[in-house]
Amino acid sequence: MAKPKDPLIGEFLKQTSATVHEAMGRRGALPGAIKPISPAMRMCGPAFTVDSPPMDNLLLHQAIYAASPGDVLVVRVADYYEAGYWGEIMGVAAQTRGLAGLVIDGGVRDSLELTAMGFPTFSRGLCIKGTLKHGGGALNKPLAIGSIVIQPGDIVIGDADGVVVVPRAEGPAILEKSVQRVDRENVIMQQLRDGKSTLEIYGLKS
Amino acid sequence: MAKPKDPLIGEFLKQTSATVHEAMGRRGALPGAIKPISPAMRMCGPAFTVDSPPMDNLLLHQAIYAASPGDVLVVRVADYYEAGYWGEIMGVAAQTRGLAGLVIDGGVRDSLELTAMGFPTFSRGLCIKGTLKHGGGALNKPLAIGSIVIQPGDIVIGDADGVVVVPRAEGPAILEKSVQRVDRENVIMQQLRDGKSTLEIYGLKS
Amino acid sequence: MAKPKDPLIGEFLKQTSATVHEAMGRRGALPGAIKPISPAMRMCGPAFTVDSPPMDNLLLHQAIYAASPGDVLVVRVADYYEAGYWGEIMGVAAQTRGLAGLVIDGGVRDSLELTAMGFPTFSRGLCIKGTLKHGGGALNKPLAIGSIVIQPGDIVIGDADGVVVVPRAEGPAILEKSVQRVDRENVIMQQLRDGKSTLEIYGLKS
Amino acid sequence: MAKPKDPLIGEFLKQTSATVHEAMGRRGALPGAIKPISPAMRMCGPAFTVDSPPMDNLLLHQAIYAASPGDVLVVRVADYYEAGYWGEIMGVAAQTRGLAGLVIDGGVRDSLELTAMGFPTFSRGLCIKGTLKHGGGALNKPLAIGSIVIQPGDIVIGDADGVVVVPRAEGPAILEKSVQRVDRENVIMQQLRDGKSTLEIYGLKS
Amino acid sequence: MAKPKDPLIGEFLKQTSATVHEAMGRRGALPGAIKPISPAMRMCGPAFTVDSPPMDNLLLHQAIYAASPGDVLVVRVADYYEAGYWGEIMGVAAQTRGLAGLVIDGGVRDSLELTAMGFPTFSRGLCIKGTLKHGGGALNKPLAIGSIVIQPGDIVIGDADGVVVVPRAEGPAILEKSVQRVDRENVIMQQLRDGKSTLEIYGLKS
Amino acid sequence: MAKPKDPLIGEFLKQTSATVHEAMGRRGALPGAIKPISPAMRMCGPAFTVDSPPMDNLLLHQAIYAASPGDVLVVRVADYYEAGYWGEIMGVAAQTRGLAGLVIDGGVRDSLELTAMGFPTFSRGLCIKGTLKHGGGALNKPLAIGSIVIQPGDIVIGDADGVVVVPRAEGPAILEKSVQRVDRENVIMQQLRDGKSTLEIYGLKS
Repeated sequence: MAKPKDPLIGEFLKQTSATVHEAMGRRGALPGAIKPISPAMRMCGPAFTVDSPPMDNLLLHQAIYAASPGDVLVVRVADYYEAGYWGEIMGVAAQTRGLAGLVIDGGVRDSLELTAMGFPTFSRGLCIKGTLKHGGGALNKPLAIGSIVIQPGDIVIGDADGVVVVPRAEGPAILEKSVQRVDRENVIMQQLRDGKSTLEIYGLKS
Repeated sequence: MAKPKDPLIGEFLKQTSATVHEAMGRRGALPGAIKPISPAMRMCGPAFTVDSPPMDNLLLHQAIYAASPGDVLVVRVADYYEAGYWGEIMGVAAQTRGLAGLVIDGGVRDSLELTAMGFPTFSRGLCIKGTLKHGGGALNKPLAIGSIVIQPGDIVIGDADGVVVVPRAEGPAILEKSVQRVDRENVIMQQLRDGKSTLEIYGLKS
Repeated sequence: MAKPKDPLIGEFLKQTSATVHEAMGRRGALPGAIKPISPAMRMCGPAFTVDSPPMDNLLLHQAIYAASPGDVLVVRVADYYEAGYWGEIMGVAAQTRGLAGLVIDGGVRDSLELTAMGFPTFSRGLCIKGTLKHGGGALNKPLAIGSIVIQPGDIVIGDADGVVVVPRAEGPAILEKSVQRVDRENVIMQQLRDGKSTLEIYGLKS
Repeated sequence: MAKPKDPLIGEFLKQTSATVHEAMGRRGALPGAIKPISPAMRMCGPAFTVDSPPMDNLLLHQAIYAASPGDVLVVRVADYYEAGYWGEIMGVAAQTRGLAGLVIDGGVRDSLELTAMGFPTFSRGLCIKGTLKHGGGALNKPLAIGSIVIQPGDIVIGDADGVVVVPRAEGPAILEKSVQRVDRENVIMQQLRDGKSTLEIYGLKS
Repeated sequence: MAKPKDPLIGEFLKQTSATVHEAMGRRGALPGAIKPISPAMRMCGPAFTVDSPPMDNLLLHQAIYAASPGDVLVVRVADYYEAGYWGEIMGVAAQTRGLAGLVIDGGVRDSLELTAMGFPTFSRGLCIKGTLKHGGGALNKPLAIGSIVIQPGDIVIGDADGVVVVPRAEGPAILEKSVQRVDRENVIMQQLRDGKSTLEIYGLKS
Repeated sequence: MAKPKDPLIGEFLKQTSATVHEAMGRRGALPGAIKPISPAMRMCGPAFTVDSPPMDNLLLHQAIYAASPGDVLVVRVADYYEAGYWGEIMGVAAQTRGLAGLVIDGGVRDSLELTAMGFPTFSRGLCIKGTLKHGGGALNKPLAIGSIVIQPGDIVIGDADGVVVVPRAEGPAILEKSVQRVDRENVIMQQLRDGKSTLEIYGLKS
């Protein structure tokens, strides 16, 4: 994985999705069903959104070339999950163009090959069913997945636990809060090992 | 993992969840969607039940300290699966207190960290969505998950295949039947390798 | 895994399920929820179909002995997924008889043992709940799973991505198309690495 | 509908399921998917519980004669919803025996005939699929549906909105609270029509 | 509704879907989620099958004119339920051509208009989402819905409880068994009202 | 139902949800699972959005008074459908304040009472389970339900088929297209009755 040019992206890559979600006030979490095809995958980059018709992947091909190096494709496929919209060839194309990863609210295939090549792929699962190439849909417009509205350029962070989306303008502030949160949690975990309780530490009712 | 003080628990830890479920007359199986976050996880202990409101984890914090070392927290979250009720900090707290594991009919997060620390965590899946701390709910009362009514103190056994719950008083008898079943199955598997069929061995219609 | 006697089966084993599905004109894909219990599992063989009543596995026992070595059991259980229809003992019996694998639109158990013995097992998931032995149902009749009608003897191919079913008579032609497709895709992936786009290569609208 | 002999049952019949659920502290509500097959149906009686194997209705036949006049059959069918466990003939049998109604966490059929005869039937939906008569299961034991544990003899109340279960011993107290709640709500609705707000009336934050 | 020319169809129209399903040995039932948009709708006719791509209804338009008067269109839409594939205009077109009804494993719209015009419409539900007209798919080929394989010309019977499909060649025999079954059930219901039990009548274990 | 002051709203009330959805280029359709609690209900008004935490309805109470007469409350409840967030008292309060209706991606109760009072109520279903009053969430902010992003003030139209949302600024243009579409469809339906086919009229491939 090439080092991201944008230092903000590079710093967010060190954070977990759960930490960032908490740091931004419990916002931005995509549906829990969207997971990496291999738990070791990590990913960060600006969103390039793809609003595709169902069972069709022409727009995904077009998106690979319309997006910029470092971008994460964020794809909705009209809630038609049972198809493999993405596979090895598209992974090679995207990796060659320098894209940072894929988040799709639908299925992918060639999971072993995509894992072997190390292209960060987050999906609702695996499906071998092929797609058509009629086209249609829209690129790089605001897109809703679950309760989250994703604007093009928003920062997308994914790991084993799931995917979170940070509004671009809030990026630096949320990164700072994320770093502080991790520091605080490290202190807390030491306090726990020293015998304190989370009730005491957080001031919760026992 | 520290050795359980109660020898019954120690012996049940050597049994699989499926064996115990069969040995007790095909009872006690929690819904199949509840699985360890890593297939190598194994767990056994008395149930400490937690009946939590949705999207809230104050009661889970309280449960960590109300339960006794060796206990397994068994949690229902009002069927609101799409939240991460438990994570690294709570895992550290629970492990430090000597709890034996967590079974939650809902989501958790920090899956890589919980796996690395070896805290047995059985859930409906992973979700990064944060929770509130309004509180409410009930600790250590009878609790229904799927078709199973769990009494506090019932013995909870989990592995890669799922989770089974044994009524406390029936523990010794069911353990004995489990051991006998494994012995019998080892004989059967040898007979199969020697050319017999399960139809012959079990006396089934061919 | 013993080498299949039928060279067609042996050749199909080298193909992925997604490739074969595309080579046959995007047909034959079973529902995406049916997956191997371990992603490394691969399987190929002629279908021996099993149309079982729910929560009952007598017919599966009978099928083990009615099928021929090399066969893949393809099982429907009346859409009652929440049971473990198959486990270690049946895996030993099937492996001893030389069966090539199991595809079940339902649950299995003893996942670690089945993985350790290397018996290709494709299911909707894991479930410890035991089954009855009342019997009933039908062996080796046409069977529908998802949108696919499976005839006894059809060729079943499974890997990490899922399962595809090839009508027996079309086997040689589809194998040839699969091989050609892989060759073509290898060329395409080299072209992509050399800087071409899939839009150019496939002649798609940009 | 004959008048219930037990005056408590007769009084509960005048209450709605939602009112009773609130009066008992928001407990006892069965899953929302269980609804009357016709919205005008109303029902109340002591629970006679039926824990049936899937796709089998012998135990339901047996229950009709094991239950007492006025009882409501409360049935779980191992979460196998896709069958019609109950139909016109069983409705006639149950009505002739004086049973007060049926609550089943599964499917029924002959919906028009059951509606025409006015037998209160609460189910997860309609399904024509026939069942077997192997038997098995248990009558009149504690039963869990959703999060609710139902004891034989508990009071079951159903209407267009759903079904609620009241522990027998709490019946008189909860009935009294229900009546008070309705009186209070009638006052509140008059206050609302007179221009007050629910925020004022309940003392809520605006 | 014009009287069907084929007397077999006319006779089946007098039977309920559940009766026919039982008379044919508990076969042929489509998934329970497929229901008439109004419970009073009844329908019978030979199947004209339509295997459509998702979110596209060109093939349904073509089917209206390819089918013969009296036919029932039986439609699968690649399990993409969330669209309205059929509405008032298509209902008028189909009714004008004399088609007997529609069974679709997907959504429809204009429910009030279709109900008002009395065109028998069986669907998975209502959805206003519009469809494309790219085309594709196949007409009048064997089609699987749920576990049922439907051959063109099979007899389709639908009412408030659901839909059943009878293989054409078995039609007369199954009709006869259906009539006998209704006669028998009428006797049984009288016996029940006279005080007998279903356990006695059917010779079941009590 | 009082006549809306805004003539645009009054005119949209004469259109069906499906017509408006098509007239705006197949956009704006809420998930098909959201339906009126009685098929005769019709509703139109500007959206007042409510983003509520799960199992809590304090924000809905607050919304009744924060919204303006004629508004439609459009509510998301964190995808926790299994609760009755709204009932008779809130219906009386909302009707007294002159609100035009409720759209909730969750459950309601008191269905018979709400139907009797004629308050347009669109929900995912009926559920008697009570809610808490902790509060939290946000009023009158952009809200995503399904794939649709709803801005406060957008025009919401609902009928038996479902709910569609029109961006405020596009209202007059879409109304005009809707009216034209209905006119065109009336002509088409006459042409169909005169013997033409939809293939001819629309110029589709036969």
